[in-house]
Amino acid sequence: MKLEAVIPPLVTPLDTTGELDRRSLERLITRQLAAGADGVFVGGSSGEVALLDTAQRRDLVRTTVAVVGGAVPVLAGAVDTGTRRVVEQARQAAELGADAVVVTAPFYVQPHPDEVLAHFRQVHAAVDVPVIAYDIPSAVGTALAPDLIAALAESETVVALKDSSGDLAKFREVLRRTDLPAFSGSELFADTAVGLGAAGIVPGLGNVDPHGYVRLYRAARAGDIATARAEQDRLAGLFRIVSVADRGRIGFTAGALGAFKAAMALLGIIDCAAVNPPLSPLSADEIRSIAEILVAHGLEPVTAA
Amino acid sequence: MKLEAVIPPLVTPLDTTGELDRRSLERLITRQLAAGADGVFVGGSSGEVALLDTAQRRDLVRTTVAVVGGAVPVLAGAVDTGTRRVVEQARQAAELGADAVVVTAPFYVQPHPDEVLAHFRQVHAAVDVPVIAYDIPSAVGTALAPDLIAALAESETVVALKDSSGDLAKFREVLRRTDLPAFSGSELFADTAVGLGAAGIVPGLGNVDPHGYVRLYRAARAGDIATARAEQDRLAGLFRIVSVADRGRIGFTAGALGAFKAAMALLGIIDCAAVNPPLSPLSADEIRSIAEILVAHGLEPVTAA
Amino acid sequence: MKLEAVIPPLVTPLDTTGELDRRSLERLITRQLAAGADGVFVGGSSGEVALLDTAQRRDLVRTTVAVVGGAVPVLAGAVDTGTRRVVEQARQAAELGADAVVVTAPFYVQPHPDEVLAHFRQVHAAVDVPVIAYDIPSAVGTALAPDLIAALAESETVVALKDSSGDLAKFREVLRRTDLPAFSGSELFADTAVGLGAAGIVPGLGNVDPHGYVRLYRAARAGDIATARAEQDRLAGLFRIVSVADRGRIGFTAGALGAFKAAMALLGIIDCAAVNPPLSPLSADEIRSIAEILVAHGLEPVTAA
Amino acid sequence: MKLEAVIPPLVTPLDTTGELDRRSLERLITRQLAAGADGVFVGGSSGEVALLDTAQRRDLVRTTVAVVGGAVPVLAGAVDTGTRRVVEQARQAAELGADAVVVTAPFYVQPHPDEVLAHFRQVHAAVDVPVIAYDIPSAVGTALAPDLIAALAESETVVALKDSSGDLAKFREVLRRTDLPAFSGSELFADTAVGLGAAGIVPGLGNVDPHGYVRLYRAARAGDIATARAEQDRLAGLFRIVSVADRGRIGFTAGALGAFKAAMALLGIIDCAAVNPPLSPLSADEIRSIAEILVAHGLEPVTAA
Repeated sequence: MKLEAVIPPLVTPLDTTGELDRRSLERLITRQLAAGADGVFVGGSSGEVALLDTAQRRDLVRTTVAVVGGAVPVLAGAVDTGTRRVVEQARQAAELGADAVVVTAPFYVQPHPDEVLAHFRQVHAAVDVPVIAYDIPSAVGTALAPDLIAALAESETVVALKDSSGDLAKFREVLRRTDLPAFSGSELFADTAVGLGAAGIVPGLGNVDPHGYVRLYRAARAGDIATARAEQDRLAGLFRIVSVADRGRIGFTAGALGAFKAAMALLGIIDCAAVNPPLSPLSADEIRSIAEILVAHGLEPVTAA
Repeated sequence: MKLEAVIPPLVTPLDTTGELDRRSLERLITRQLAAGADGVFVGGSSGEVALLDTAQRRDLVRTTVAVVGGAVPVLAGAVDTGTRRVVEQARQAAELGADAVVVTAPFYVQPHPDEVLAHFRQVHAAVDVPVIAYDIPSAVGTALAPDLIAALAESETVVALKDSSGDLAKFREVLRRTDLPAFSGSELFADTAVGLGAAGIVPGLGNVDPHGYVRLYRAARAGDIATARAEQDRLAGLFRIVSVADRGRIGFTAGALGAFKAAMALLGIIDCAAVNPPLSPLSADEIRSIAEILVAHGLEPVTAA
Repeated sequence: MKLEAVIPPLVTPLDTTGELDRRSLERLITRQLAAGADGVFVGGSSGEVALLDTAQRRDLVRTTVAVVGGAVPVLAGAVDTGTRRVVEQARQAAELGADAVVVTAPFYVQPHPDEVLAHFRQVHAAVDVPVIAYDIPSAVGTALAPDLIAALAESETVVALKDSSGDLAKFREVLRRTDLPAFSGSELFADTAVGLGAAGIVPGLGNVDPHGYVRLYRAARAGDIATARAEQDRLAGLFRIVSVADRGRIGFTAGALGAFKAAMALLGIIDCAAVNPPLSPLSADEIRSIAEILVAHGLEPVTAA
Repeated sequence: MKLEAVIPPLVTPLDTTGELDRRSLERLITRQLAAGADGVFVGGSSGEVALLDTAQRRDLVRTTVAVVGGAVPVLAGAVDTGTRRVVEQARQAAELGADAVVVTAPFYVQPHPDEVLAHFRQVHAAVDVPVIAYDIPSAVGTALAPDLIAALAESETVVALKDSSGDLAKFREVLRRTDLPAFSGSELFADTAVGLGAAGIVPGLGNVDPHGYVRLYRAARAGDIATARAEQDRLAGLFRIVSVADRGRIGFTAGALGAFKAAMALLGIIDCAAVNPPLSPLSADEIRSIAEILVAHGLEPVTAA
């Protein structure tokens, strides 16, 4: 398995009854592969991982593995609070055919870094597929420090890092100190990350504009900084869709994930913008604002806002 | 079901292989009931809820329901990141015979208060047993504000509150504004909470010294403030066991939960002080310090430290 | 100097030009003493300490000392980021006649507890008046742990503690472990604090209703719990004035301090509700809401809202 | 006044009695100018701004202005909790000859963004020298959002931004949305910032290795990415001096600023590594570790560790 380039963290399409919408998922994956994605990551933060029940998660991985058909690696989130729970999820994902599992630090509990290290080691020892470390302090409250990441790399406990910390100084330290393939989860400095040696990018906004991030990645990889930066600037404008929601009525997560799905529904990539409970849906006005942002950035809605 | 008085949040005893130790659990419950507990709460923070896998959780609730045999209410934590996952856990607990489920705000995601309200409403609508709101911002990052708790009370979405916020001003506001039975999770101002009208107390340290908290509760309920306070002061001294662990080596959670279990093993309440991964065990020196604190507070170890 | 009972943290009255309004300050102090205050604290958080310039602060302490005329102790905040700056402020306050200075942990910098201890020791060594430790983690980002407070008490570095942490468990630990006179800054559990042995209370809301907190204190001190609690409940209702401001337009500090001043202007205690820049003023609607809350709690405005 | 390129935030050299060491300051400035600094910034976070008293601050600005003699702009921090206090400091700095003042969001108080905006506007209106916005949420608890910075830029309230947020996504948004000269305070991605269009860099580590950051800046400005990155990587290694201090004994601020000063004393740039109270000094062992790191990065101590 070769992990590199553009690996979008797929949203989990739902139908109007709230169940997994397999046809939309299939369409989404097909479009991603056609656009040039080099892998897919299901059950990450953009995929509402914290809100999926066991059946949805199983259905999601199974369907994804089937649709992808081995064309690219399938990464599956095994995101949970404690080691035994992560092992449970990771084994299930591996049995369903995922090629690797993506694992965060424990949360709800307050661990010492040595306990975080033990967590990754025990997950690694218990599952038959490679483990990817997922650094997302905004969700789990614990950052993976460079020393910890270096220890994970040296012991071959993990095969890659997905960095959603927003902390470029740390990302560079990991690149400098280890050979671990490091993926940036940033929508907003993906070109910088690739220019600095990132193995690839995992941008949530790639659900909405896969071609944009593929162009960005290829330009940055080729050393064409100006092209990569122009693409990045355009995508940063597009990313404003995550800020249209009225935060007096709806939380940060619903505002961001709902915007991805609303944009994708407008673009015909998925059928329905529904999100899992308890997230609130966007309003009609907010969806209209999203449609305007799409148009302003060269993406043409196929359905009315 | 009458919810009141002392409802200890039980630790989850494990054997040396890391599996649920049913005999120790049975002994623990028997001792709690003999000491005067008016309910038991399994699968809470003291019960390592975030670290239990599905089988452990099932085994835990099933065994507890069997041992309790209807003598007092059995509360089971249904603590998870999102609504569908909580419903999944809550239904399982109800099927296994739990009398009520204890539910926190969603976490990992960042919800708006209206989404937190929707979360409780949807869980309530989906399960056949009463729901108890669990306010524990240190673990989930979101506090339940008095307005939200009042809305939960008025709509009869929840039947009680377990407050582990440490915020006495908020606790008093809930008591003043609602008729909701409110339980304090504080080890350190349980007497104050009862004096102010708390329906009961849910102290983790009650695992170690059930008689102490029963005495405290009864004195406070009877208005014997001096006796209650003297007991509280003694228990505050005992609570220092959670601070003996070297925080340069072991996290806050392991230090606290490990101390409860180490003390219980010393006192012969459970056989083994093992905690779930990835928590680190206490050192022999730390366990000796715990033994000394026990002795200093009138609890005599039956096994060597 | 005897420090005990009710020591309100006075607001700093300003005139319409933004300068210290000495006549209003005189009226405020006179009313406080008539109501039974046993000391006054100027230049605390309720007194906009962070927003006063050198001249305002000097004028404030000088005027207060003159008006009080030795009738009760005058405490002056010496709240600043670092040791030398605090010493500078503390010496000035002492020269102007303050009887004690109130000092927080350093801020802006991120100190180790040993450095916080050194801070208090060096301030104590450098000034000729007693030092009172001020625990207000919401403002300075560092909490004073019980171990630190115990060290300050044992070394006689400070003569009292003002606790604005909101953390009752910690407050009780200080009461249990030290002989240090401990004052609670809580508006909402002042009766509890006194019942547990607090030397006194320092409630910002005491600016608005001094009689209420004096009644509360005396009842609590006399062991008349029911009367103290009834008064506390009434004052908790009155405290809702700090929540009327629209937080979409105005910050937490402006909402709270502006409400104190608006209520005092309505009640004729001060002439003008102005706050120091950059705090925004309350709106006319917000002031009307405050007037309604005053009336509902037995305080009759003498000027129109 | 032209603000660009390398503007180091100078440490404030102290002598063994704790007073400003003017000779060391003169030597430091002379070396910086010789190395190619295009301005100096005194009284910033690296300059212990929060710990300087009025006399030290005055002496610092006066001496710096005299030594620089107009050769490059002198920026002075006017860092304080509230508007009137900042105005007081800013006017003093302007009177002493500073060319611009550097101002953070208010702190200790909790302001709304509109109040932060008002703060900058009122400071700007009250002082005769240009204002530079200083974004340092780790110290003041409030981040300057891009919308706020854009408003400051459009209204010409500030002439530049010093970004010490560590948030590259935000920094890029400012570069994209405004023409405001933006300086990065990062030691660790200075090359990236310049490559993206930063007007310059303000690295605390520039006190220790001014030549390194000048080389880095010039290479990055010239588009020589490989050279800039190699220099950045070397400087990142050198930056490890801020991590040698034992955090069980000494705070983050003392560890970092003490390391800068210890390295500078070893290199003969300043005479004495003393820091203002209450910061603890580094140990002899820690200073030896710093000496080793210096040597490993091509900087030769002239005094024994």
